[in-house]
Amino acid sequence: MTAVSPARIITPVILSGGSGSRLWPLSRSSYPKQFLPLAGQLTMIQETAKRVSGERFAAPFIICNEEHRFIVAEQLRSTSVEPADIILEPVARNTAPAVCLAALRILEETPDGGLMLVMPSDHVITAPERFLEAVGKAASAAAAGALVTFGITPSQPETGYGYIKAGTPLGVHDGVHAVERFVEKPDQATAESYLTNGSYLWNSGIFLLSAAAYLTELERFNPAIVDACRRALAASRRDLTFLRVGAEAFAASPSDSIDYAVMEKTGHAAVVPVDMGWSDVGAWSALWDIAEKDGQGNATKGDVVLSDARNVYARSEDGLLVAVVGVENVVVVATDDAVLVAERDRAQEVKQVVERLKADRRNEHALHTTVHRPWGCYRGVDRGDRFQVKRITVKPGEKLSLQMHYHRAEHWIVVEGTALVTRGEEKVFVYENQSVYIPMGTVHRLENPGKVPLHLIEVQSGGYLGEDDIVRLDDSYARA
Amino acid sequence: MTAVSPARIITPVILSGGSGSRLWPLSRSSYPKQFLPLAGQLTMIQETAKRVSGERFAAPFIICNEEHRFIVAEQLRSTSVEPADIILEPVARNTAPAVCLAALRILEETPDGGLMLVMPSDHVITAPERFLEAVGKAASAAAAGALVTFGITPSQPETGYGYIKAGTPLGVHDGVHAVERFVEKPDQATAESYLTNGSYLWNSGIFLLSAAAYLTELERFNPAIVDACRRALAASRRDLTFLRVGAEAFAASPSDSIDYAVMEKTGHAAVVPVDMGWSDVGAWSALWDIAEKDGQGNATKGDVVLSDARNVYARSEDGLLVAVVGVENVVVVATDDAVLVAERDRAQEVKQVVERLKADRRNEHALHTTVHRPWGCYRGVDRGDRFQVKRITVKPGEKLSLQMHYHRAEHWIVVEGTALVTRGEEKVFVYENQSVYIPMGTVHRLENPGKVPLHLIEVQSGGYLGEDDIVRLDDSYARA
Repeated sequence: MTAVSPARIITPVILSGGSGSRLWPLSRSSYPKQFLPLAGQLTMIQETAKRVSGERFAAPFIICNEEHRFIVAEQLRSTSVEPADIILEPVARNTAPAVCLAALRILEETPDGGLMLVMPSDHVITAPERFLEAVGKAASAAAAGALVTFGITPSQPETGYGYIKAGTPLGVHDGVHAVERFVEKPDQATAESYLTNGSYLWNSGIFLLSAAAYLTELERFNPAIVDACRRALAASRRDLTFLRVGAEAFAASPSDSIDYAVMEKTGHAAVVPVDMGWSDVGAWSALWDIAEKDGQGNATKGDVVLSDARNVYARSEDGLLVAVVGVENVVVVATDDAVLVAERDRAQEVKQVVERLKADRRNEHALHTTVHRPWGCYRGVDRGDRFQVKRITVKPGEKLSLQMHYHRAEHWIVVEGTALVTRGEEKVFVYENQSVYIPMGTVHRLENPGKVPLHLIEVQSGGYLGEDDIVRLDDSYARA
Repeated sequence: MTAVSPARIITPVILSGGSGSRLWPLSRSSYPKQFLPLAGQLTMIQETAKRVSGERFAAPFIICNEEHRFIVAEQLRSTSVEPADIILEPVARNTAPAVCLAALRILEETPDGGLMLVMPSDHVITAPERFLEAVGKAASAAAAGALVTFGITPSQPETGYGYIKAGTPLGVHDGVHAVERFVEKPDQATAESYLTNGSYLWNSGIFLLSAAAYLTELERFNPAIVDACRRALAASRRDLTFLRVGAEAFAASPSDSIDYAVMEKTGHAAVVPVDMGWSDVGAWSALWDIAEKDGQGNATKGDVVLSDARNVYARSEDGLLVAVVGVENVVVVATDDAVLVAERDRAQEVKQVVERLKADRRNEHALHTTVHRPWGCYRGVDRGDRFQVKRITVKPGEKLSLQMHYHRAEHWIVVEGTALVTRGEEKVFVYENQSVYIPMGTVHRLENPGKVPLHLIEVQSGGYLGEDDIVRLDDSYARA
């Protein structure tokens, strides 16, 4: 094992993976749960980054799906978190390779190594001060070469989590125990015995470990992962502020979790028990668990009217009015294109609905009505056979690509802000309550030269209105 | 009693009253349940009118809320029913005065009287041939002066309906019984005893009676109603094809139902028992009762995905995807601005939600997103602080009023069909994929000169966007 100094600063490594399909219809694969403010004002990835923004932490490394890169960048920017790097995964290979990429990158920057605090981006921690305290306890053990995991003191006989049986305390490191063993998700009776026993903890998937120690152990148990990641990094290229690793090399990595690839095999696993109001928010029922409730056990968000409902989680996004009459133990989630009604105890099965939508080649599992782009977003508000209407929002200073469509003409009506429109050879400012027409086949570009968001209504007209009818001639976001 | 000839033709009198609030969010006060295709392809008022369009029936009289006049006219027109008259009620006074107006009007047209078949416009009858057969049986008794009601053979111990106890058969009129008594909605035990007894029938609210006999009995028991209705008719005026009765005179009428005002008091009440698949569709649970169901007892309409649901009624209008996971005995109804989730057995309580919306001065109890007008309809598709977007549909040959707005400018983009636009002094044709701008304060008019519906997107821009910012200078529908 590599010896590392305990005083060293800790580098957060935030894993933005997973599609959160059990939180459909809010979570969708193009904009999954870590990017949503499910349990507070900030989104979960923002909460995760802010939680470790104190002075003992270095700038975070983020590992994310390349499809989500602009969302990650924007969400960090808007909470003033400056990432050390955003590493794009060309394909999903589970957590062990993702953390390996981060460890290799960290060692490039600080060759004497350092501690990594590995965290999923989509967990809720309602007592962050206890989390930081636990990280403090873990630091000296991790600096001494232990691979430390955080074990959550169970509050109920949960069958949905894996458990860690804590062993003897590591004498020199206060609050740190050896891991006796990792155990799979138990049945109800076993979960109840674990709760009574007291030495079983929920496996949180959060780790503090030195980059060097992690690589040493991964090299020992899964050298193919380290090899693939080294080659993927060697083949990496910078794309704006993102790091794109070599796709072919990374795809060759075995897919495995940190737990299976390293933690369950290493002799250096340790655990810090902590009670910090943790939830992995794995389903709507978990949000009901952690929400504030009225006297009848109901938790609501948005425009919801209840009439004699009990133990209900009801949530309305996008302004729909949701009325719930007389039901019990039900989850209701409404968005502007999809509504979920589920028995609260069976909220896990929402995943199967999402699988069905995917199999039926629908798009409600993947896309929201509002689609995010690096320059802003658009939202479909109406459509017919030969037309569609969108509300387009362009952030101050941003611009869409210089583009052309073969099959549609576009009418733009500025309703807020000022647009600078390129149309063929001309460039014109279009002000609030003015409109401009882009004939089919005309090269055009839309930009917001102003200081406030630009909102416009776009009416498209034509025989084919797919998003793929676009020829990009120039793009500020390297998408051309 | 006035003697009337049994061979005489029967005049349907269709009562379009009530707001159907228990069928919210589909039914709303500006467009209530009788105007919706709740149980089939046609709307309930269309089904009601078509059911009695055979040769033994005269053209129907319709009595409706003046707010609904264009909807009634359009729905009858589109099923080729030519009404004898559409009488507008300035205020609701329950069924006795409404039928009195119809009786007086019928006697104006055919002074020797005739038979009226009085029917609510919002009932379902799945076996209309049995209904017509029952009407046939009732006719000779009604012609002889009986006030005949139709009593539905109960199929379950229903506590939501009033009952009629059938007495001895009227020997000369096959299938017609004297009414022994009317009874109020019973409790469960009583309803069960009624079901066993066999001579208790559900009070359908459908009547066959001679206009003269009805007036005679109403005059005897409630002369103030007859007096108010006579004066209201004397003060009536023609408005296009509608008859507006005198508002002040009609408002002076006592409010009462036919049952209380006449049927429970007269010595001439008779009943024809009939089993005709009747439902008053009083709540969503009634629609589940009469719907076709899958093997798990689920009835669905529209874009609905079920996963292990049982005995559920799930309905999606307006294209929302509704997913239902694991619940039982629940009603889910989704529209583009409101979602209802209710315990099926408690669907009656939806009325209380509607009352609450009204008390909170919201508008979801009254208006749909799509608002119907005599010239077509519009639908709000987006709105912001200083703008809103509507999709406007104008029927062929129709035109909006010549109008002007003080606080908003309008951009119109034609997406289907052809518009003829008056703008100040000019008149211009606007074709598909063309736009026109109406500055604030400019007198304008929109019309569809073509043979197919005109669809356009309207973007309004201004500091005040209420519907009441309209100065009507001329209107084809007498609304100026």
